[in-house]
Amino acid sequence: MGAPFRLTRRVQFYETDAAGIVHFSWYPRYMEEAEHAMWRAHGLSIHVPGSLVGWPRVAMTFDYHTPLRFEDEFEISIEVVAMSARSLRYRCLLSRDGEPVATGSMTIVSVEYRPGQAPRAVPLPPEVAACFAVAPDTPQA
Amino acid sequence: MGAPFRLTRRVQFYETDAAGIVHFSWYPRYMEEAEHAMWRAHGLSIHVPGSLVGWPRVAMTFDYHTPLRFEDEFEISIEVVAMSARSLRYRCLLSRDGEPVATGSMTIVSVEYRPGQAPRAVPLPPEVAACFAVAPDTPQA
Amino acid sequence: MGAPFRLTRRVQFYETDAAGIVHFSWYPRYMEEAEHAMWRAHGLSIHVPGSLVGWPRVAMTFDYHTPLRFEDEFEISIEVVAMSARSLRYRCLLSRDGEPVATGSMTIVSVEYRPGQAPRAVPLPPEVAACFAVAPDTPQA
Amino acid sequence: MGAPFRLTRRVQFYETDAAGIVHFSWYPRYMEEAEHAMWRAHGLSIHVPGSLVGWPRVAMTFDYHTPLRFEDEFEISIEVVAMSARSLRYRCLLSRDGEPVATGSMTIVSVEYRPGQAPRAVPLPPEVAACFAVAPDTPQA
Repeated sequence: MGAPFRLTRRVQFYETDAAGIVHFSWYPRYMEEAEHAMWRAHGLSIHVPGSLVGWPRVAMTFDYHTPLRFEDEFEISIEVVAMSARSLRYRCLLSRDGEPVATGSMTIVSVEYRPGQAPRAVPLPPEVAACFAVAPDTPQA
Repeated sequence: MGAPFRLTRRVQFYETDAAGIVHFSWYPRYMEEAEHAMWRAHGLSIHVPGSLVGWPRVAMTFDYHTPLRFEDEFEISIEVVAMSARSLRYRCLLSRDGEPVATGSMTIVSVEYRPGQAPRAVPLPPEVAACFAVAPDTPQA
Repeated sequence: MGAPFRLTRRVQFYETDAAGIVHFSWYPRYMEEAEHAMWRAHGLSIHVPGSLVGWPRVAMTFDYHTPLRFEDEFEISIEVVAMSARSLRYRCLLSRDGEPVATGSMTIVSVEYRPGQAPRAVPLPPEVAACFAVAPDTPQA
Repeated sequence: MGAPFRLTRRVQFYETDAAGIVHFSWYPRYMEEAEHAMWRAHGLSIHVPGSLVGWPRVAMTFDYHTPLRFEDEFEISIEVVAMSARSLRYRCLLSRDGEPVATGSMTIVSVEYRPGQAPRAVPLPPEVAACFAVAPDTPQA
């Protein structure tokens, strides 16, 4: 049962829009950056060239509380909140100077791509399942 | 009470990722493209330079059913499913050759930005409220 | 010897930045959209799943004359201006209401990716070479 | 006369395309990230809300030597190679483990935006001119 994984990040100019704030489509990318950094911290990668297993995203949500602006430094905190035989669900909090900016969630599925066959959901590889203890005070899916 | 607004779109190469499919962060952009095209079809714009009113997004969801690939042609169908004094909620369906690809939703708020004051939610401008009849068989928020 | 290929396009909100104009990194994407549409118009595709041949970009330039803004409609005009045994070079003009917006160029190379071997430049496939007559008044590379 | 400014960066998944490599449109963004970090290191910002001065890009080039892939760590090195009364020109080198990946250049102009007037090029603000000594062995523009 681990603490959330944390990543610090600065807003880039190309992430802003004509309203002067970060475009809302960047938040899923921020969440994914933190996800991939968390996997790397466990010695894992979400995308291994040549591997038959991939991790398509099947659901995503975001609630936006306050805007981010150019050069803002902010923190992304992510944790696994549910694990089933074939899927993981994350919860993500973005904050700036301790102030909540946005909250997100994402569900990913372990899928096997065999040439000539339709993709199919497969059990989480054991090395992945072993890494992602579900966060405390969260009922397992 | 109108029919959903429809937009046809083709997948661009820069929207794909190393898994060979459209990256999931593009779907909110597809939804927004359809939203803005629907506003234009009503003679409206979501972003009028010099206007004090803006439309920040406060919530967004997506469920992904099947991937899109380079050069796929697909349809985005969007409609207003809830309208409150200060907000609109959309439902969006992406499909390819009649097959569902993804479903999304998005809530936007009418906000006034007066110089030297904190932004505040304001009633929908009457010309906006008049345009977006809530889709049938949908309870109004 | 054909006329330039033309594509009409509208600026999307997510393409703008906090300066209120289209971010300069979008122009290469606009150029590529027109390139791929031109290939489709010839019955070709720049990316054929399973094919051993790919088209990496080896050089790109842009000169920016006047900004584009949200919802601007503009035209992209592209043509092949040089063809060598293994490469193509394009010239691209963006304009809005007849006014030049930006000019670009891009060179792509025909590369074969054989498993277990280093990628290597190969002669243009004959069906590609046959399509792209070099624009008149342009010396062939 | 300073050394080039250096920034280390990792490839994000959303920066890759269906060819399995970073899409070429990301390199201008990488160059700009390094530019903005260099300005911050000098206590400057390229975009100051409320300021009348902006820095539109008027020219950009890139030559691509070898591809970048997901999770590659690479270095961006940038320096000012020319300074005129109203403009700066940068040269940029991307490398991975000491191997050149791409080389780029970019020219930006100091522009004043006064309400109700056309934008016009203005002399570089003195605090900017003072910071960017032109790199040695480079003739000044």
